Amino acid sequence: MNNKIKIGIVGYGNLGQGAELAINQNPDMELIAIFTRREPNSLGTESKVENISNILDYKDKIDVMILCGGSAKDLDEQGPMIAEYFNTVDSFDNHGRIPEYFDKINGVSSKSKNLSLISIGWDPGLFSLNRLLGQCVLPNGRDYTFWGNGVSQGHSDAIRRIKGVKNGVQYTVPVKEVLDKVRNCEDINVPPCERHKRICYVVCEDNEDLNKIENEIKTMPNYFAGYDTSISFISEEELKINHSKMPHGGFVIRTGNTGFDTKQKMEFNLTLESNPEFTSSVLVAYARAVHRMACEGKTGAITIFDVPLGYLSPKTGEELRKELL
Amino acid sequence: MNNKIKIGIVGYGNLGQGAELAINQNPDMELIAIFTRREPNSLGTESKVENISNILDYKDKIDVMILCGGSAKDLDEQGPMIAEYFNTVDSFDNHGRIPEYFDKINGVSSKSKNLSLISIGWDPGLFSLNRLLGQCVLPNGRDYTFWGNGVSQGHSDAIRRIKGVKNGVQYTVPVKEVLDKVRNCEDINVPPCERHKRICYVVCEDNEDLNKIENEIKTMPNYFAGYDTSISFISEEELKINHSKMPHGGFVIRTGNTGFDTKQKMEFNLTLESNPEFTSSVLVAYARAVHRMACEGKTGAITIFDVPLGYLSPKTGEELRKELL
Repeated sequence: MNNKIKIGIVGYGNLGQGAELAINQNPDMELIAIFTRREPNSLGTESKVENISNILDYKDKIDVMILCGGSAKDLDEQGPMIAEYFNTVDSFDNHGRIPEYFDKINGVSSKSKNLSLISIGWDPGLFSLNRLLGQCVLPNGRDYTFWGNGVSQGHSDAIRRIKGVKNGVQYTVPVKEVLDKVRNCEDINVPPCERHKRICYVVCEDNEDLNKIENEIKTMPNYFAGYDTSISFISEEELKINHSKMPHGGFVIRTGNTGFDTKQKMEFNLTLESNPEFTSSVLVAYARAVHRMACEGKTGAITIFDVPLGYLSPKTGEELRKELL
Repeated sequence: MNNKIKIGIVGYGNLGQGAELAINQNPDMELIAIFTRREPNSLGTESKVENISNILDYKDKIDVMILCGGSAKDLDEQGPMIAEYFNTVDSFDNHGRIPEYFDKINGVSSKSKNLSLISIGWDPGLFSLNRLLGQCVLPNGRDYTFWGNGVSQGHSDAIRRIKGVKNGVQYTVPVKEVLDKVRNCEDINVPPCERHKRICYVVCEDNEDLNKIENEIKTMPNYFAGYDTSISFISEEELKINHSKMPHGGFVIRTGNTGFDTKQKMEFNLTLESNPEFTSSVLVAYARAVHRMACEGKTGAITIFDVPLGYLSPKTGEELRKELL
């Protein structure tokens, strides 16, 4: 027996693999098992793997389950199911449906006396925290979120759903001129479609009408219409070589006035070579907070706004005050 | 009667004046009184002013006292005295002495059942929070704090203490080449004296030996020795016109690796036209958190690491989840 924090991972896509790697970087944590719907032997990892149907065998053996379901749909099902038996942390990222998901999880985990931290990652997550901080410190101001440069999974999927498209990757890129204006404390009101460009690399089936596909992408409502969208048709091989990584990042900037028109600016930004590895690193740090808050008796659903940041650290309050304050 | 948060300000230097302005930007707060050691009528404000000797008359009339004493020395005396009767928030910024100050305040406020939040501002404060966040999310990495461009009060004071110097202002400036390397994820180990330049504007008495003064500044241990220091001798009038503002800012950057050598970067930066107005805006936002945590029964001394960021906002948890997550 040791007193490491016992972690389970549910789902072994990009996020789950990232969580496995991140746990290795945190010596106060131990990965007990990975739970998957796939054949356990097929995962190609040296960690212990279980079919998800055996998850209840681990009821008293795991302190926190990190839910790495690949989509909001996975979490919709798995979140409430697992929160009935375990403390959880997840990265539910459908912003519009967060209140509904929160209520559902809160109902389950309040009753089961577990603690569930939802919507952790960088957006929602660290970016949300910085939007909040900006609004509270500079109430007389405006905040701006820029995403990119980075691969948007949702937009890449949208391209791949088009008939005649074999594969595709979409990069979201902040418009530099707008970013510079914001950083220069110009108080401008620019909608997301004017703050970002969309750059697409598309692999088509043979003999497709490229103009038709290009037009279909550029006019797709909610995804590309209204955006400055550029499209390059490339080969499957080129896509694999040059566009198989998942970089991302972005900026949360708050500009505002204090006193008599004194300009102040706060900025938080991320440059990530791997979006899923970073997101899962955030999940793992917050799993520590879940464990510690659960040990203190906290139950129900919570968000990043409810977590004192000291709980993320393996260090004591005394050490943090001495070394980091 | 209303249910606004009732605030008192102790001390009416730059910070106290900033706090007064910041409270005006927060409609859920009300400034009850400013407490000063000076003659109350001499302050030139329309807010209610009291001599600090009358502070106990306000014992049940103020929810949180914002301690704006001008120096760590003021807080050493006022902190424990006031924490005996009121909830407090202060900006105690002598990093090396924080543990000792924490223990002293904690002793008083635990006994008096008040809540005292210490060392709030941007460094210590928001920068500390970002150093913590970086270390927890990217445990395999390194963090860098750069200060500036901005006026360092401590270094300006050090110049003014030199015999023959009438006045002086010192700007701390990050070395751009080093900042660029760090932002470029180069893993470098550079001491503070190589990360910052010191730019000084000095007004001398008539007929002083400028070379001697220049040499005395450049070789002053702990302040300037080892730094790239440049000195311009100017007139009192020029100092007033060009160097009477108090801009500041800085950067906290964490670079690290996840997985198999994947580079990740987190950055928080501030560009402030007025250091004291920003610091006091942070104090005012955290005064709200102190009030709310005290209402929930929390007592003793705490730091920025102990405060869930949702408590900074006048909005409910439900509103925050819907609008900001």
